[in-house]
Amino acid sequence: MPRGKVLVAQGGGPTAVINQSMAGVVLEARKFRNVELVYGAYHGVSGIVNEEFLDLTQETSHNLEMVANTPSSALGSTRDKPDLKYCQEIFKVLKAHDIGYFFYIGGNDSSDTVRIVSEEARRADYPLRCIHIPKTIDNDLVGNDHTPGFPSAARFVAQAFMGANLDNAALTGVYLGVVMGRHAGFLTAAAALGKKFPDDGPHLIYLPERTFSVDKFLADVKTTYEKYGRCVIAASEGIHDSKGTPIITQLMSQVERDAHGNVQLSGTGALADLLCDEIKNKLGIKRVRGDTFGYLQRSFMGCVSDVDQREAREVGEKAVQYAMWGDRDGSVAIKRTGFYSVDYQLVPLESVAGKTRVMENEFITDSGTDVTDAFRMYLRPLLGSGLPDAYRLRLNKVAKILNPGK
Amino acid sequence: MPRGKVLVAQGGGPTAVINQSMAGVVLEARKFRNVELVYGAYHGVSGIVNEEFLDLTQETSHNLEMVANTPSSALGSTRDKPDLKYCQEIFKVLKAHDIGYFFYIGGNDSSDTVRIVSEEARRADYPLRCIHIPKTIDNDLVGNDHTPGFPSAARFVAQAFMGANLDNAALTGVYLGVVMGRHAGFLTAAAALGKKFPDDGPHLIYLPERTFSVDKFLADVKTTYEKYGRCVIAASEGIHDSKGTPIITQLMSQVERDAHGNVQLSGTGALADLLCDEIKNKLGIKRVRGDTFGYLQRSFMGCVSDVDQREAREVGEKAVQYAMWGDRDGSVAIKRTGFYSVDYQLVPLESVAGKTRVMENEFITDSGTDVTDAFRMYLRPLLGSGLPDAYRLRLNKVAKILNPGK
Repeated sequence: MPRGKVLVAQGGGPTAVINQSMAGVVLEARKFRNVELVYGAYHGVSGIVNEEFLDLTQETSHNLEMVANTPSSALGSTRDKPDLKYCQEIFKVLKAHDIGYFFYIGGNDSSDTVRIVSEEARRADYPLRCIHIPKTIDNDLVGNDHTPGFPSAARFVAQAFMGANLDNAALTGVYLGVVMGRHAGFLTAAAALGKKFPDDGPHLIYLPERTFSVDKFLADVKTTYEKYGRCVIAASEGIHDSKGTPIITQLMSQVERDAHGNVQLSGTGALADLLCDEIKNKLGIKRVRGDTFGYLQRSFMGCVSDVDQREAREVGEKAVQYAMWGDRDGSVAIKRTGFYSVDYQLVPLESVAGKTRVMENEFITDSGTDVTDAFRMYLRPLLGSGLPDAYRLRLNKVAKILNPGK
Repeated sequence: MPRGKVLVAQGGGPTAVINQSMAGVVLEARKFRNVELVYGAYHGVSGIVNEEFLDLTQETSHNLEMVANTPSSALGSTRDKPDLKYCQEIFKVLKAHDIGYFFYIGGNDSSDTVRIVSEEARRADYPLRCIHIPKTIDNDLVGNDHTPGFPSAARFVAQAFMGANLDNAALTGVYLGVVMGRHAGFLTAAAALGKKFPDDGPHLIYLPERTFSVDKFLADVKTTYEKYGRCVIAASEGIHDSKGTPIITQLMSQVERDAHGNVQLSGTGALADLLCDEIKNKLGIKRVRGDTFGYLQRSFMGCVSDVDQREAREVGEKAVQYAMWGDRDGSVAIKRTGFYSVDYQLVPLESVAGKTRVMENEFITDSGTDVTDAFRMYLRPLLGSGLPDAYRLRLNKVAKILNPGK
């Protein structure tokens, strides 16, 4: 184990448990005597190129534990997607600061950065161990059973739809919730875990893995509304038509054409609003409400899966162990070994970098608007313990007196 | 105590604890020997006029406890606002079913319904005890320290802003969250309880109690953004200009004028999107994100104040006690007696019905964009126990090597 400093950074969108992975790296790394200091890069790779480092060796263990339980990226994040030149800058800084171990917590873009930096170090014959630590609420990393951050976001979505379904049952109408996940529908599909009774919503789920047709959508809503007197819908922000054009773009251009102007409809609530307008105008249903879950679903404080917390901590800890006791760079991957149990593997960076996993076919019903029991079995253990449960009054109806026949 | 049946109904928007009040009524009423049966009206007053009753005497105590812990209105709700004729229909049905005790859980519209039904009964010389039980996330009932449902919704808003602030600190820019409350700003103001450190957001809070000027708003955002490099904003859906015109209407008509068309921008995300567009276009800030909390804030499953649960239960229980041991109709009101402790009073229906409370001046700072410590002291105990807490890494900065001066 060569001597050197440890550097940890966080990239991409924050999650509820990304600080668990950071704390896992820091607390584990501080146990190794060959580790001189543990640095954290402030705001991801942009913090590296600007030499914005925090000395985490000076941080107390207790505060690290408290920060681990706090959502969002405590080190700050960045949307920078480094190209070769940017990675060479990163490498230059790592070298100047005598960094021997580089840990980057992030999605597939981040793993690609780790891959390039790793190659730069090898080319320069500089001893640098580079490990990518998985994180994304989209659950779209290949080679992983699932990714840290996803279970907690999925729990938020499931709990949100549990409540939205109850609300919609009390004041009936159509409710549509738009969920994050541009390419992978896992998070949207998590809405199904909010169902308990057969007539509970979400009654319809629209995923980016299937082609979306506005006409089919309206027909689905009509059928459901006629059957239950109400309709709860979960739609991914990434739904698109057969050409791959996002539905939001399609509907917006219609609005523009109608108005003969250049109306700018940018903003996060637009897709929900446009789909709700379609339902109101084409189906004539009065009470139609749309919510866009937006940033709440990835940052809400106080909705976290304990399984997710534990695993996010472990991928950070394992990353350090692979770096210290192993002989190669790579990405830590979660593998499922039981119902429910996981183990970790170090997989090649090339196998993760730049690739996108989408929902497997076996997880989606033939109708395309619901998930299978296989998906429910897959997701339920990830949501963790203490999931709320909805109860109903039993329908002991009283006979009518004034209008006995009705 | 005359013999008779008990009828309980729920009206208006669901809350996280309205079923506690319903369970409080049912469980307490079932203890009284003069109570023949306990009915629940299905979907509020519309269920009454249609004689849609559930026999809650047949419901198990355990299931009532489980339902009490479930958000939204288990009996269903309605948006019907009964006029005199409607109330006469209600009275006719109550008489036909031998109802001796009528409990209606709802906001100020519901209390007005109770008032009219009470008068009808008196006029007909029919022995009917009518009690209004308070409920509203808007906290806008006069004569109450606060109303059941508000504390849990406020907790959701505070937790949401805690997370949104952390997210915005990790990936900087402007974040705007639109909160419910058309006339009263209590729920929007609850965002302030998400702050821990002096530079935490929300940095700006816009309430319907103050006039909103788009120019002033943009100036506020600019100043904050220059100071902190980021800006988190909480805005009430009810913000309006000096003439009382809602800002959403004002901004929408601008869009229409620009496009020379009839663009329909209805839908819940519009206000957030329009304000974000203003910031992007006028201030040139790139990363501007808007969320509309929508139905999540009143129905999210798994975010509830235990203080709110307890009090919602107690107003239901007290309503029955006032009905059985008292000699007049009225509305149950929450009075604060200590820090923190409450007691209940039966106040005249006329004193609550149709009136709207807004935030007291002492709760709003002179700037109009923040709340006072008096408000923090008022709200904090209502949020209940176990509120999450955000922790930060301490800024032990490492000296730069490549660019030591910067």
